[in-house]
Amino acid sequence: MTNIEEIGARARAAGRRMALMPTERKNAALEAIATALIDEANAAEVLAANAIDVAAGRDAGLSPALIDRMTLTPQRLAAIAADTRAVARLPDPVGERFDATVLENGLRVHKRRVPLGVVGVIYEARPNVTVDVAALCLKSGNAAILRGGKEITRSCAALTRLIQNAITQTGLPADAIQVIDDPDRALVEQLLRLDRYVDVIIPRGGAGLHRFCREKATIPVITGGIGVCHIYVDQAADLEMVVPIVHNAKVQRPSVCNALDTLLVHRAVAADVLPAVARDLLASNVELRADEAALAILRDAGFDTPQIVPAQESDFGVEFMALILSIRVVSGLDEALDHIARFGDHSDAIITRDAATAEVFVQAVDSSAVFVNASTRFNDGGQLGLGAEIAISTQKLHARGPMALRELTSYKWVVEGDGHVRA
Amino acid sequence: MTNIEEIGARARAAGRRMALMPTERKNAALEAIATALIDEANAAEVLAANAIDVAAGRDAGLSPALIDRMTLTPQRLAAIAADTRAVARLPDPVGERFDATVLENGLRVHKRRVPLGVVGVIYEARPNVTVDVAALCLKSGNAAILRGGKEITRSCAALTRLIQNAITQTGLPADAIQVIDDPDRALVEQLLRLDRYVDVIIPRGGAGLHRFCREKATIPVITGGIGVCHIYVDQAADLEMVVPIVHNAKVQRPSVCNALDTLLVHRAVAADVLPAVARDLLASNVELRADEAALAILRDAGFDTPQIVPAQESDFGVEFMALILSIRVVSGLDEALDHIARFGDHSDAIITRDAATAEVFVQAVDSSAVFVNASTRFNDGGQLGLGAEIAISTQKLHARGPMALRELTSYKWVVEGDGHVRA
Repeated sequence: MTNIEEIGARARAAGRRMALMPTERKNAALEAIATALIDEANAAEVLAANAIDVAAGRDAGLSPALIDRMTLTPQRLAAIAADTRAVARLPDPVGERFDATVLENGLRVHKRRVPLGVVGVIYEARPNVTVDVAALCLKSGNAAILRGGKEITRSCAALTRLIQNAITQTGLPADAIQVIDDPDRALVEQLLRLDRYVDVIIPRGGAGLHRFCREKATIPVITGGIGVCHIYVDQAADLEMVVPIVHNAKVQRPSVCNALDTLLVHRAVAADVLPAVARDLLASNVELRADEAALAILRDAGFDTPQIVPAQESDFGVEFMALILSIRVVSGLDEALDHIARFGDHSDAIITRDAATAEVFVQAVDSSAVFVNASTRFNDGGQLGLGAEIAISTQKLHARGPMALRELTSYKWVVEGDGHVRA
Repeated sequence: MTNIEEIGARARAAGRRMALMPTERKNAALEAIATALIDEANAAEVLAANAIDVAAGRDAGLSPALIDRMTLTPQRLAAIAADTRAVARLPDPVGERFDATVLENGLRVHKRRVPLGVVGVIYEARPNVTVDVAALCLKSGNAAILRGGKEITRSCAALTRLIQNAITQTGLPADAIQVIDDPDRALVEQLLRLDRYVDVIIPRGGAGLHRFCREKATIPVITGGIGVCHIYVDQAADLEMVVPIVHNAKVQRPSVCNALDTLLVHRAVAADVLPAVARDLLASNVELRADEAALAILRDAGFDTPQIVPAQESDFGVEFMALILSIRVVSGLDEALDHIARFGDHSDAIITRDAATAEVFVQAVDSSAVFVNASTRFNDGGQLGLGAEIAISTQKLHARGPMALRELTSYKWVVEGDGHVRA
């Protein structure tokens, strides 16, 4: 039987050692993981465990898309190994000193970056997340407790054994990466209440998982990975930009959280913009759910296809995760801002040549990332220069937008005196 | 009947306006609050409401200390007004741009500091907190929902009316500061689940309140204001520093969270240190709970008083909030670090002239503030240069140690392109 309390205590002890681990040792550990992932004998064990998960998934009637996401191959392991090596090459945030100052009384004060401690990550049936999360947590000096989807229990266990073997060879504590490889869901609830040992919970999954974690956790939960994304085409938009940006945001990868959901178009340019956008998106099999004004413009322009349907109220404020786009014509910036204030918090963009309008938009839109003349798809740790990503936070506390190594740290105050006492 | 949902929605709307409020308007609002607090007519209403709370508290048999903390006077209102003006003079963190960079593809990226949004603060029977919190939240562009102790419901309501009147005169939304002035405790539980509208909960009170908030909240809770503080006297300590620092940390204000609880002394210097420390602290009426080794040293030195008692295991890892100190003799740095790792997380200090030992201590101790040759009492926003303080966080997420204006903000990513799409 899995004893969560014991896993927590071991993680806390390992975290304490990890916090003091030199960068070179952490990097060597990541290299050892990468090497093991492409080593035939090690890989064989992982692939065998994964094959059992996949077979069980097929028997259980899982969808082909899910089966594909679950499946590991030597090629996929090599890609995961390459990602692990990339994390090894990123700068180590731990120990960074900042906000240094000398107070009037002579006290020397600075903040020093430290690991969070123990990170709990709950994810779905994607075995690669096991290694991705382990690499980021180890490099940032944290211990991690992992809980993958019940469909991949054996894959996660095998990958964790591989990770533990690799990192102990370079002097890291095996308990720095632990997995809950018991599919009993009650264990997740226990994990969420382990505030004595766990510093943060990062759920990676749908809205249901996030809600469950917020409801049950006595530990801070990072909320993210979910959101309704908007592009507002301003009356001063460079029309040449509109089709490529909207296409990219909607079509390039519709199943992810930074994909476009709703297009807002200023009515002054709607007749110019919408036919071109529609032509492009229809050719990529996107279903358009247009409000009355947009529908009238498209019908006037001669569009007559079942791919264009009238939008319902429920088509706004919804994350489609599919080739569907809702379209609304707005009277101007204010109406666009009101709409985004109501539904947005993830990635929202304006297309405009007017710098003043862009600045108003940037100031007023309260989302994790605000874009001017660029695709919402850039809200991603790899794309924004973090080199990796453990989550995209849409909450305000701690970190917002893409989170990677620095976002897996906290800080402590260091105060040095010469016998100073408080007056 | 108080409708929490409505309070939340109004706070969210006010927060949206506050986020865009110019610094001068926010400062003018704080000046208006300060002016009202020292205006005779305004103050009279507050003092009358407070007098009813205080009378009810006396009837209910509240302790004189509590009654004193509850009581407002014209002098105390003037002090609160001065604190409010001090917050007005602090720099406005909102809008600050940082981490600016241009990516290889030409995207211009920066982070921009934004308010958290809506802050929920739950506190005890200290009416001054109403104004302190309001000032910090307004200056940092947030809206706040306040819930003071049931003993001061009328005082909080009167102060909130005063604040609302003052800030609306300068164009701020009245709903930026709202109070739950209904003593029904069920309302606190409802507030803790208002994640649609509230971005963070800051409890200011004892361990019970913090636990209650963590258990019930679906909103992130800042944990803090509680902690066991240690001073470790190293074998290389400058003995001249020991008595003044220990005295200051223990005696200056024993009822606060950064006061000393446990003294750890290297056995090589224990016989030199302990008698001097004991002489000083006994003179200030401190009770000493000494472990076996410390007790033997003190007895050998001729101490014979009921103020010195043998320490129980339960005297370590406990926050005394009183003139009590537990003392333990340790074999060296490692034992001190193990002790602090087990019990510390708030403020821990080393006294040593050895820079290398100090650095090991600073690195290894995982507390919100680590001190070298200085009193733990400096873990305070005012003392560490923040100019104010809303809480001292002992958690790792978001902010650690003293929190003031900057710690009441988040950030958003701003990404500016020229038609950029993701490859």
